[in-house]
Amino acid sequence: MKFVSTVLLSTLCMAAIAQEPKNVIMVVGDGMGPAYTTAYRYFADDRTTPAVEQTVFDRLLVGMASTYPARVSGYVTDSAAGATALSTGTKTYNGAIAVDVDKEPVQTVLEWAKKQGMKTGVAVTSQINHATPAGYSSHNESRKNYNEIADSYFDRKVANTFVLDVMLGGGWNYFKRDDRDLVTEFTDAGYQYVDTISALQNTDVSKPLLGLFADKGLNWALDMPDKQRLQTLTQAAVKHLENDKGFFLLVEASQVDWAGHSNDVGAAMGEMQDLAQTMTWLEQYVDAHPDTLVVLTADHSTGGFTIGADTIYKWEPQWLENLKASPFNIAKQVMATNNKVALASELLGFTLTEDEKSLVNAIDTQDEEIAYQTIKTLLDLRTNTGWTTGGHTGVDVPVFAKGPGSEKFRGLLNNTQVADNIFTLLGRK
Amino acid sequence: MKFVSTVLLSTLCMAAIAQEPKNVIMVVGDGMGPAYTTAYRYFADDRTTPAVEQTVFDRLLVGMASTYPARVSGYVTDSAAGATALSTGTKTYNGAIAVDVDKEPVQTVLEWAKKQGMKTGVAVTSQINHATPAGYSSHNESRKNYNEIADSYFDRKVANTFVLDVMLGGGWNYFKRDDRDLVTEFTDAGYQYVDTISALQNTDVSKPLLGLFADKGLNWALDMPDKQRLQTLTQAAVKHLENDKGFFLLVEASQVDWAGHSNDVGAAMGEMQDLAQTMTWLEQYVDAHPDTLVVLTADHSTGGFTIGADTIYKWEPQWLENLKASPFNIAKQVMATNNKVALASELLGFTLTEDEKSLVNAIDTQDEEIAYQTIKTLLDLRTNTGWTTGGHTGVDVPVFAKGPGSEKFRGLLNNTQVADNIFTLLGRK
Ligand SMILES: [Zn+2]
Ligand SMILES: [Zn+2]
Repeated sequence: MKFVSTVLLSTLCMAAIAQEPKNVIMVVGDGMGPAYTTAYRYFADDRTTPAVEQTVFDRLLVGMASTYPARVSGYVTDSAAGATALSTGTKTYNGAIAVDVDKEPVQTVLEWAKKQGMKTGVAVTSQINHATPAGYSSHNESRKNYNEIADSYFDRKVANTFVLDVMLGGGWNYFKRDDRDLVTEFTDAGYQYVDTISALQNTDVSKPLLGLFADKGLNWALDMPDKQRLQTLTQAAVKHLENDKGFFLLVEASQVDWAGHSNDVGAAMGEMQDLAQTMTWLEQYVDAHPDTLVVLTADHSTGGFTIGADTIYKWEPQWLENLKASPFNIAKQVMATNNKVALASELLGFTLTEDEKSLVNAIDTQDEEIAYQTIKTLLDLRTNTGWTTGGHTGVDVPVFAKGPGSEKFRGLLNNTQVADNIFTLLGRK
Repeated sequence: MKFVSTVLLSTLCMAAIAQEPKNVIMVVGDGMGPAYTTAYRYFADDRTTPAVEQTVFDRLLVGMASTYPARVSGYVTDSAAGATALSTGTKTYNGAIAVDVDKEPVQTVLEWAKKQGMKTGVAVTSQINHATPAGYSSHNESRKNYNEIADSYFDRKVANTFVLDVMLGGGWNYFKRDDRDLVTEFTDAGYQYVDTISALQNTDVSKPLLGLFADKGLNWALDMPDKQRLQTLTQAAVKHLENDKGFFLLVEASQVDWAGHSNDVGAAMGEMQDLAQTMTWLEQYVDAHPDTLVVLTADHSTGGFTIGADTIYKWEPQWLENLKASPFNIAKQVMATNNKVALASELLGFTLTEDEKSLVNAIDTQDEEIAYQTIKTLLDLRTNTGWTTGGHTGVDVPVFAKGPGSEKFRGLLNNTQVADNIFTLLGRK
């Protein structure tokens, strides 16, 4: 009897607490499996204090999600099928952009939001027509059709308007082409256009906004003057999207995945740092705007990244704390100098051992890839980091949420339930 | 105003729902990081149906836990410090058995339960004096002092009685020694003793129970007549522990970790299968006994196990479905025959490719370790499994719970909070 009544009470209580958000900010850490958020805690730890400090991820964790695609693609997803699951609630084949296994378009949460009269946007560090933002904003049988996807952002109307009110990220190669200048088409249609991140400070919030800042993806966070570039893009997007009817914003830390594909632990922590700053700002935004739901998850994990390797019980992220540039950038600079050890030591932020000096001195003056591999190997050995693949892995990913409706994301979700929950919270039956 | 009132309502509701459990069953999947529970889903998937079936782990997930030890041991824990955090709420150095960094004993949740008049037990697949059960039941400056730890189970009294009412697992080497026969001492003191798992069917539940089934750890699940040996031990333990004042039981799937250390994906899935059956039975037990709390987590992850490897987007656990024995056992049998390909094919449960036949034919008739490595490599390539270490990694681990108090385990916990929560639920201020 006691248990029946508490179950009833629990149900009543949950119903009473439930809220519908006015705004939804969906954040994807591309490739950000559980090892990345864990590693970031130890990377960010203040090692002069006895305790390990909590991160924003620790404060916001609510559950985990499975990531497997449609059966035809096995158990390991790519970013396109991952984005489609998160955006539409449909499992599909690897490579698919918001189309099902029969290549039929499936409605995305962003499109649904637009149809409800909400404003919509994407703020990403990849090109804005890359798999994840495309998975929310376009439909295509292949993620590789970059030009078609870029064109669709202008040509395809949702609720008689452009699908996206705000687009921030990279992509000049696709939006300013010889055969078509989408930037001019958007500005002729009333969009404000900026091509530097600093110009985001002075935009007219009454206008829709297109901001492109690179040919394809942005530079690594570690190589940019604004190392919190994703936070800056997110703040600008929110500023432009705020309105009485609410908004849906897709934010992507796109390059966690790229660091994973490159097996580059230094770049990975740089990208995680940018995401952590972004999430900290979003956490404060929800405190100030309790009608906003923020959800963060990953589409999959990348690289088979492990915190510890080679039967040694340690992981030493302190060697990543003082990087003056990304490992790729360090490699290029070291290639170009005769004084390799001195420059590598300065850019890495620590004194090299004799073994490390030999490694660095052997860097070829011609082969960029081998030079990059050398710097990565040096950092893997210093930190004791492991990797198993240049691709993705199937491990479940963490889920974080804050704001009204966040309790729906608790426990183990199928990745499709992330979309299902957002549809429900935004009123789709 | 609206938000203040819902926060208040939420707090009131949570207080109203909160229950204190009569019985607590703490389950540790040693080494069971997130890749293990995820991989088990795909291993257990019925590939003839369109959907991937939910596992018991999927139903019970509530959050994740960090695993780092005391600062003196860096960020990667061993099983002793991991068990001490989970059992006492204290971070300590690697190797420590329920002592703090100053080597001072710290009270465990099992000891606290015993002091409250509850019965206590351990049911594990390692020797019962191994790091995890010892971390709940003993205090020692080093996990390596196996004999001292075994002796302490008899010699050290908690609340004027033996610390453990039920002990099930391996350990003849430590409990029946030339210098001391603890089995006889326990039977003289009134314990019932069994040395086969099948004898657990006919024990006298009115007596305390010692059951030892191996010199050290039990055989791999895959090599035992009772492949659900942990479930059998758990059921027997619960049967002996049930009483009016409640019980605390520590269950450990000890050998998930051992499979990880060996980088043996076949054995790992065999151990996870045994744990999944155990958890399924415990889930039903809580349904029938809603005064019982079950919590499952891991002390750390082992092996740097990844679901996918080598830049190939696949993981194919179907090749592990028909193993007739553990990979180690298969290797030993293949060593001993002249007809290596036929026997390997029969025991692995699939037809070998030409490359695989060459691998198997090259198995040495003398070197057990190389033979074992060959079978593991063959299965890693078949399934596309990755590993980075013979040791542990620092990734956060999943947390599962069901029963009264389970809501306390939601979100991201420090591993010490697992103990703190159990202490609180059992009334320690
Ligand atoms: Zn991705
Ligand atoms: Zn362990």
